[in-house]
Amino acid sequence: MRRFVVLGHRATTSPEFSLDDLSGATGRLDILLRCINSSFFLSHSIRKDVEIHLILQGPPSPTKTIRFVGSELKYLNPDERSTAALIRSSLSQRAEGEKKTSPGIYMSSRKYSDVISLLAKDSQIYYLKEQGHDVRRLPSFEQDITFVLGDDRDLTPEEEQVLFEYDPIEVSLGPESLHADHCITIVHNELDRRLEKN
Amino acid sequence: MRRFVVLGHRATTSPEFSLDDLSGATGRLDILLRCINSSFFLSHSIRKDVEIHLILQGPPSPTKTIRFVGSELKYLNPDERSTAALIRSSLSQRAEGEKKTSPGIYMSSRKYSDVISLLAKDSQIYYLKEQGHDVRRLPSFEQDITFVLGDDRDLTPEEEQVLFEYDPIEVSLGPESLHADHCITIVHNELDRRLEKN
Repeated sequence: MRRFVVLGHRATTSPEFSLDDLSGATGRLDILLRCINSSFFLSHSIRKDVEIHLILQGPPSPTKTIRFVGSELKYLNPDERSTAALIRSSLSQRAEGEKKTSPGIYMSSRKYSDVISLLAKDSQIYYLKEQGHDVRRLPSFEQDITFVLGDDRDLTPEEEQVLFEYDPIEVSLGPESLHADHCITIVHNELDRRLEKN
Repeated sequence: MRRFVVLGHRATTSPEFSLDDLSGATGRLDILLRCINSSFFLSHSIRKDVEIHLILQGPPSPTKTIRFVGSELKYLNPDERSTAALIRSSLSQRAEGEKKTSPGIYMSSRKYSDVISLLAKDSQIYYLKEQGHDVRRLPSFEQDITFVLGDDRDLTPEEEQVLFEYDPIEVSLGPESLHADHCITIVHNELDRRLEKN
């Protein structure tokens, strides 16, 4: 399973946002929407072996974590607006523990540190960071892997500290500093190529 | 200069579309919008050495070609909706020859074959195709290159014939069949890495 964890440092935790202004008053929720697209979409299908955890840390009621599970998703389309509507619908529901809000979409109040702690039990953690090891030069990848990345802001020193408790492998993707969704596309391409060789 | 040519086989050529339904009644204009995003956006800047030509071939008045020029762009944001508004504004204007409709955005009635013929004068043509040569194994890239790709549909045999007149190099990006915008992201990553080595 390939997992992505994206930190939405100021992404809204209220469903009261307009679908007409997704890059404005949502705390850059638009970045997370594009990460969903690049996590799941193949040309004519959805990647089943993928999960993404969006950690929404903005006002008014942080943290909300929304988890998308590729093998269960039914109503996902590639455009930003319809994906935003799915998130809005999730945020409008009350969750005790983790609640399914739509096929393949789950919401909880899990904090970033809880999400990482849970995922680190089953998977090697990779930290996407410009100063990391070149992804193409890593000798191999485990079957179960989790990639952690920020939205348009890097992880804070505190967020990095949480990650460092789990011995993450720091990975870079190339010489340029890229948008989060573009990073996910490149990670997939590298892993697809490795799988093909095996 | 890196150039991308994306064929919007049924992409609308009318400005009369709703920004609220970009993946519905626009002939999959949403795919082209995401190609604009992946062509230009770096984390905190816009790629200046890039141009994209969107060939809109849908009703009611095909063909319209919209060209975005990285070094001149001013009002481009990463979200789909605001980019769609730029396209809509272009389509609402009448063009004789090629007309600047906004900084860095040009519209014309150039047909696909005219666009390719123009670009082939100055640049090597690459055709993104699943059966092509692996992009990572190509020995080198010229300074001026043009990548041609379809939207969610492959090039028709007639469109391929046009391309084949210019001895394109057929390039594949990996084992999976990918969305057009994801292809552009992977091409950029490969070229960024080559540039870094030089």
